[in-house]
Amino acid sequence: MSNSTSFRKLSESASVDQLSTQPFTGSKKIYVEGSRPDVRVAMREVHLSPTQLQDESTEINQPVRIYDTSGVYTDPDVEIDVRKGLAPLRESWITERGDTVQLEEFSSEYTNLRNQNIGLDNLRFEHLRKPRQAEEGKNVTQLHYARQGIVTPEMEYIAIRENLALEEKQMEDAAKFQHAGQNFGANTPKFITPEFVRSEVAAGRAVIPANINHPESEPMIIGRNFLVKINANIGNSAVTSSIEEEVEKMVWSTRWGGDTVMDLSTGKNIHETREWIIRNSPVPIGTVPIYQALEKVDGVAEDLTWEIFRDTLIEQCEQGVDYFTIHAGVLLRYVPMTAKRVTGIVSRGGSIMAKWCLAHHKENFLYTHFEDICEILKAYDVTFSLGDGLRPGCVADANDEAQFAELRTLGELTKIAWKHDVQVFIEGPGHVPMHMVKENMDEQLKHCHEAPFYTLGPLVTDISPGYDHFASGIGAAMIGWYGCAMLCYVTPKEHLGLPNRDDVKEGIITYKIAAHAADLAKGHPASQIRDNALSKARFEFRWEDQFNLSLDPDTARAFHDETLPKDSAKVAHFCSMCGPKFCSMKITQEVRDYADNMSDEAKEGMEKMAEEFKSKGSEIYHEV
Amino acid sequence: MSNSTSFRKLSESASVDQLSTQPFTGSKKIYVEGSRPDVRVAMREVHLSPTQLQDESTEINQPVRIYDTSGVYTDPDVEIDVRKGLAPLRESWITERGDTVQLEEFSSEYTNLRNQNIGLDNLRFEHLRKPRQAEEGKNVTQLHYARQGIVTPEMEYIAIRENLALEEKQMEDAAKFQHAGQNFGANTPKFITPEFVRSEVAAGRAVIPANINHPESEPMIIGRNFLVKINANIGNSAVTSSIEEEVEKMVWSTRWGGDTVMDLSTGKNIHETREWIIRNSPVPIGTVPIYQALEKVDGVAEDLTWEIFRDTLIEQCEQGVDYFTIHAGVLLRYVPMTAKRVTGIVSRGGSIMAKWCLAHHKENFLYTHFEDICEILKAYDVTFSLGDGLRPGCVADANDEAQFAELRTLGELTKIAWKHDVQVFIEGPGHVPMHMVKENMDEQLKHCHEAPFYTLGPLVTDISPGYDHFASGIGAAMIGWYGCAMLCYVTPKEHLGLPNRDDVKEGIITYKIAAHAADLAKGHPASQIRDNALSKARFEFRWEDQFNLSLDPDTARAFHDETLPKDSAKVAHFCSMCGPKFCSMKITQEVRDYADNMSDEAKEGMEKMAEEFKSKGSEIYHEV
Repeated sequence: MSNSTSFRKLSESASVDQLSTQPFTGSKKIYVEGSRPDVRVAMREVHLSPTQLQDESTEINQPVRIYDTSGVYTDPDVEIDVRKGLAPLRESWITERGDTVQLEEFSSEYTNLRNQNIGLDNLRFEHLRKPRQAEEGKNVTQLHYARQGIVTPEMEYIAIRENLALEEKQMEDAAKFQHAGQNFGANTPKFITPEFVRSEVAAGRAVIPANINHPESEPMIIGRNFLVKINANIGNSAVTSSIEEEVEKMVWSTRWGGDTVMDLSTGKNIHETREWIIRNSPVPIGTVPIYQALEKVDGVAEDLTWEIFRDTLIEQCEQGVDYFTIHAGVLLRYVPMTAKRVTGIVSRGGSIMAKWCLAHHKENFLYTHFEDICEILKAYDVTFSLGDGLRPGCVADANDEAQFAELRTLGELTKIAWKHDVQVFIEGPGHVPMHMVKENMDEQLKHCHEAPFYTLGPLVTDISPGYDHFASGIGAAMIGWYGCAMLCYVTPKEHLGLPNRDDVKEGIITYKIAAHAADLAKGHPASQIRDNALSKARFEFRWEDQFNLSLDPDTARAFHDETLPKDSAKVAHFCSMCGPKFCSMKITQEVRDYADNMSDEAKEGMEKMAEEFKSKGSEIYHEV
Repeated sequence: MSNSTSFRKLSESASVDQLSTQPFTGSKKIYVEGSRPDVRVAMREVHLSPTQLQDESTEINQPVRIYDTSGVYTDPDVEIDVRKGLAPLRESWITERGDTVQLEEFSSEYTNLRNQNIGLDNLRFEHLRKPRQAEEGKNVTQLHYARQGIVTPEMEYIAIRENLALEEKQMEDAAKFQHAGQNFGANTPKFITPEFVRSEVAAGRAVIPANINHPESEPMIIGRNFLVKINANIGNSAVTSSIEEEVEKMVWSTRWGGDTVMDLSTGKNIHETREWIIRNSPVPIGTVPIYQALEKVDGVAEDLTWEIFRDTLIEQCEQGVDYFTIHAGVLLRYVPMTAKRVTGIVSRGGSIMAKWCLAHHKENFLYTHFEDICEILKAYDVTFSLGDGLRPGCVADANDEAQFAELRTLGELTKIAWKHDVQVFIEGPGHVPMHMVKENMDEQLKHCHEAPFYTLGPLVTDISPGYDHFASGIGAAMIGWYGCAMLCYVTPKEHLGLPNRDDVKEGIITYKIAAHAADLAKGHPASQIRDNALSKARFEFRWEDQFNLSLDPDTARAFHDETLPKDSAKVAHFCSMCGPKFCSMKITQEVRDYADNMSDEAKEGMEKMAEEFKSKGSEIYHEV
């Protein structure tokens, strides 16, 4: 059903209820309470079966807690009503700070026009909340609070969440069973305290995207001393897709681990689509406001004005968008630097602004109005995601003059945003061969004063259309290790078409692997707990535990069943690779039992024989 | 159809003809002649459409040559008869060296028993060639020739192949349009000469797996100063799959870019399956002979003997296997080092040998008989792939005492092999977090004297069953960049089940991406030609060229058509992401035209305005 041909109200349509709400097998939703009863941190706990020991006794395997982005959709005890939206869990935190007011009407002209248009009634989300705004003269950003020394409930929530709800002692124990990482130029403590969260935000090294008009979102943090996050893009386009599809894509994205979702819609009814998404989203929502502004001028970049853009910002601030991509670094003088490139300007936002600059022979209005934008953002706590409009579109264009010129300007703008206590992170490329990835991180840290980095991939080769989720995942894993705080996913359809449901999932799982690999390599506290639990389950042929601990239990189980479909095969002490007669893992268990039961005498004999072989070996083999 | 229930002769069955022989769209098979007419290097050439310029004229885009592992299967001019096998292209090179004899009968007892068994007639490949062996006292390895200063036709073939048939001048030009790489501890010349190939083989830094009984294979090289290669594993198991399927899997693997294929069969009729595969394989075939030896003793590791293993080696040498994985580094004294691991010993070969050692309380017979093995291998030119039987099976076990103890022993054995002029490369892990990958390469280079490294992945996390092709592909790309010469693929079914046709392809494409990304990062001469051509095609909306230059044109085309199925969309100057109204690439073209047509006056004006904005910007923005 496409929106334009719909006569029935969307809210009365059954199609909006087609959400993915099935809980994960073997898992339970838990809520860990903080210092106050309304700080209840959602988490997923995977329950494991015991290990069967030789002497018929069993060894208990502790449940494993997993960072959970899926919100209440995977909680069977919560009734989901997509027409009402999620419960506003942050509402009391926001109101009790006493620095905001609820407005009687929306401040955006466009919003008011849309709300008055009865032709849109059938599409509209019906429970519109009145918008909230900072009181005159107040700044309501988490950065502002952090700098005042205030630890907000959001910060406490994040600390518990990042620790996977482990106590300090448990966290220290967990760290003993993992490899020390190699965390480039940062220093993650073994245990994250609310105060550490505050200090990282205050330093600008981390952001908490949390618009006061999106009280439904569960607090999360983006910064290189925290778990690496991933973003999933959704959005309808002029060509295809409907509101229901987009809401489900958001739910589907968070189910598999999307930490934030960007709504990149460019087609019709962007405003209404966004409302449905935000009201139902447990994660922060990002947008690129210039896309919608361009729709308002019928796709003619030259017709864009600061006034139209400003109204669009306010429209989206009052709906609850948590971060904005703003291409304020595409300066007029940088544009000709891209003319000799193999693929010129590939960023949509970048090319829109480049076209505008050239057409008017004026400086980018996002740059000249940057302080005006700061004034707006601080009244709602919307975070800047400074866009890389001149990012390279192929490996040949990587790390060139245009790209790094813009990066330095983004660094300059970071300081302006910080002057206003507005949170900011920086977008990065793109297409970069492996040996040039680290330079991107180093330059970003240097020129952008350690503001968090948020990269698309980068793709490490251009020859893999259809598999660019993977080509970009390599670069993403590496830059995550080097210190990138959030990775924007790429789907298999990149460069070719619009992602469907399967593509979105494939992109997310690929990026969860990249992000987790980066956490391991950085030595993020306790990140290896899940790996170790899964590997132990694998070694002990606890197939169900192995599936349930996987990033994608459904696929793991289905792949196993393709070869060995019977239920008995899931308790079998062998797998399809070697078959029942011979199995390396089975033999290893025998080796281990042998080693365990070896008498001291036998051990001595083995040592002695080893010595013999060594000396014999030395004679035979070291003649050359 | 499974073998055991087949009454009709396999050679009379139509199912063996179900091979993938379709040529690639937009591509032509070419043969580049060397210094003699029978050196004809097969290559794939992708033809590109011209660029439409503004003034209605066109610009020619040169065809792009692609390294081609698919043999004659993708040449429509060659008739394929799987019952006869491929033409023995190396036969005259082997015979003219005058150092081999054709035997009247096979030297392996087991082979003779199989050949006499009329119960196997229906499965047998019918055109058995008599085996060839070195003359008494001769050594027929490429390493032996290289050390004598002989440049073999194989070496010349490889030089042309690695250069993608470019002339020296063309190669130097191509290198100008690519990023200089960062080649760790090696030095690849801009242009590969036959003499360079010889010198790398002589130094032991590269191997040419080329059994004299596999004259059908097209020469290729494995070494870190050459293109990074990938291996695909196939093989039936006790649980499932048939001979026809395995032959087609081999053809399918080479179609998508498998540089070598390992036949890891563990089920019935291993001998006959292997014959069909080798006779039809254009790429080197590797095996793990201990798997078959174990079948011969009904899966009871303790019953293995040197005599059974020796006969198995000779059986496979005379069939034409090009390299053997030999787990000679699993020493008795290393076995207890694995007892405290999370996942003990996960290598099948490693666990077989560990079990044998413990059962007999004796040193590994592959180690004690290593010089005997060298004597056999040099009579056929079979290359050692020294197995890492103690590789880590999870990230927790990475880089531990057991793993590195074995690696040092493999280094010791490398020197023995070289004493016999037997070619050797070294197998590596496994599961390793990103920050510990480089240590693997460094230790290998140091302890194994720069013999080529051949790794499985490594997987950089354990939590991704169903997606381990990707988790391992990250590690593979990185270690390829660091200097690993060949990457053993992993399919999505790893740890879960047996790969089907789609899984094999997915694994191969993933690894082609990893290998190519490594080539780019190393700055391998001319590796970026294909990337640049594809990106230029993308930028100019030459959709068909973009598909045809892709690693997997079929998938790229299908993904595009899912969103925009009409043929007209393939010549359209937009894509599904932004739709017809707005398109970033289109805008960039306008930007470029603008920059091109800009008068000097305008340029000056832009510079001036930039200066103004800069100074104004400095005033506004640099207050902080």
